[in-house]
Amino acid sequence: MSFQLQHAEYLAYVENSLQQTTDCIFQPDSKVSEAALYSLMNGGKRVRGVLVLAVADLLGGDWKKLGPFACGIEMVHAFSLVHDDLPCMDDDDMRRGKPANHIVFGQANALLAGDLLALEAFQALMLADVSWEQRAKAAQILAEASGARGMIYGQELDLFYETKQVDLATLESIHRHKTGALIACAAKLGIIGAGLDVENSQQVVEYADHIGLVFQIVDDILDETATTQQLGKPVGSDRQQGKNTFVTLVGIDNARKKVEELTQEASVGLQKLYGAKAGFLIDFAEQLAQRIN
Amino acid sequence: MSFQLQHAEYLAYVENSLQQTTDCIFQPDSKVSEAALYSLMNGGKRVRGVLVLAVADLLGGDWKKLGPFACGIEMVHAFSLVHDDLPCMDDDDMRRGKPANHIVFGQANALLAGDLLALEAFQALMLADVSWEQRAKAAQILAEASGARGMIYGQELDLFYETKQVDLATLESIHRHKTGALIACAAKLGIIGAGLDVENSQQVVEYADHIGLVFQIVDDILDETATTQQLGKPVGSDRQQGKNTFVTLVGIDNARKKVEELTQEASVGLQKLYGAKAGFLIDFAEQLAQRIN
Repeated sequence: MSFQLQHAEYLAYVENSLQQTTDCIFQPDSKVSEAALYSLMNGGKRVRGVLVLAVADLLGGDWKKLGPFACGIEMVHAFSLVHDDLPCMDDDDMRRGKPANHIVFGQANALLAGDLLALEAFQALMLADVSWEQRAKAAQILAEASGARGMIYGQELDLFYETKQVDLATLESIHRHKTGALIACAAKLGIIGAGLDVENSQQVVEYADHIGLVFQIVDDILDETATTQQLGKPVGSDRQQGKNTFVTLVGIDNARKKVEELTQEASVGLQKLYGAKAGFLIDFAEQLAQRIN
Repeated sequence: MSFQLQHAEYLAYVENSLQQTTDCIFQPDSKVSEAALYSLMNGGKRVRGVLVLAVADLLGGDWKKLGPFACGIEMVHAFSLVHDDLPCMDDDDMRRGKPANHIVFGQANALLAGDLLALEAFQALMLADVSWEQRAKAAQILAEASGARGMIYGQELDLFYETKQVDLATLESIHRHKTGALIACAAKLGIIGAGLDVENSQQVVEYADHIGLVFQIVDDILDETATTQQLGKPVGSDRQQGKNTFVTLVGIDNARKKVEELTQEASVGLQKLYGAKAGFLIDFAEQLAQRIN
């Protein structure tokens, strides 16, 4: 099957599972459930959900049983965006070209909608048609990736360094926590879902670590090029005041080179271990990187 | 063992488990983890945590394995208070005689601290030394009680009806969701922890349903008496403007009578089924009710 067809199949499965799961979990006639749906069902790329399914598929798991795992991680991702946009955080009015959650539903409902998504993510995991051990381990992995030492810590670091100059190692640490932890978590959910141990599937986790960072650097490059193109200045000449990005730290050319290297490294390990079966994930990494071309 | 001694033993066990769990889960040198600890380790009554252990004990379970279940539910409770106090919600500066979380740590850190507690509650559950099935079912029950159809829905109802006149049925529904769902959840975690099915232990769930409501009515009575005593007016003569409470709806005498009835009902069922073994839980219900005497 071509990459495009396979990707469409995984994506449709994630969307379908989200619909089923939220139908089953959410409260009818509730503003907060409506607000949660607004941010969850917004046509996102579902990078994390697709990754869960594709990794399980690579490892010989029955990925069609893992829709609820994909939902769980997409719900945590959606929750993080809703809370991130709140006035006391990044104070963003827009998200993916639409008004942010709190602009549409008010701050109280947006806060509660984020809470709801975070909590119900764990109920979603439990709906997967796999063993209780697999479901419990999935909860453990999702909590770990998103909590005190994972995504939430990344958000704290991000806020802390917002107005400070950072070095490359610090910037990488921020992003490994803020974005990377959840992308690595998607791969781990796929491993658990396939009935394997995370410890014995390190090549896949490394792949996810790499593409997590690629994802962030590409975002930084896109931000930079969008900003400078709008201003009519040459790309990379106008560093965003006070904002630490890979582009402001190493320059746009080195950032592009880093994307290339990381994508390459992500693929080599998988290729060696899984051969042709790794085709989808290798193309997937390539596609994430190519957003900047 | 006397009620007091037994209660002290459960309580010490909850506190000890919270210390161990947070040591293991939280991030050192993190403002957000510090903020989460501030609200979690604040000398609360641990009604929910104690209930988990006492119910498991009643049902012949090894309650000393269930510290992590008690932690999980106390973390969700603490998270709800931190977010409840935020300016976009109830905007309370004080909580249990101390400055609210966002007053000490700022809104962004308080928001993240609440998020952290909600997410890591599920990691806490997974640390219990019981089967994977019990741990997974605990996660399911906690998410259900706290999420879209549970506590979060109660908070939504509470906000929605804040400035509206409600009838008694609506007020009960608000509290059954906002407070009651998590107290019933504590009993359910005790049942699961003892290796039994919630469906076959309905008497215990009913007990928890009853004391959940008692808890709220007692709070309303305490609020009312504190307010009126401060003002030097006779108790019950001064109804809080616009605030729906059991006292404003049925009057203080009927509220007291309701507390008595519910406490009685909570105990009768348990007494019939479990005899002397139910002594602790019956005294526990009595003690919650007696806060108003």
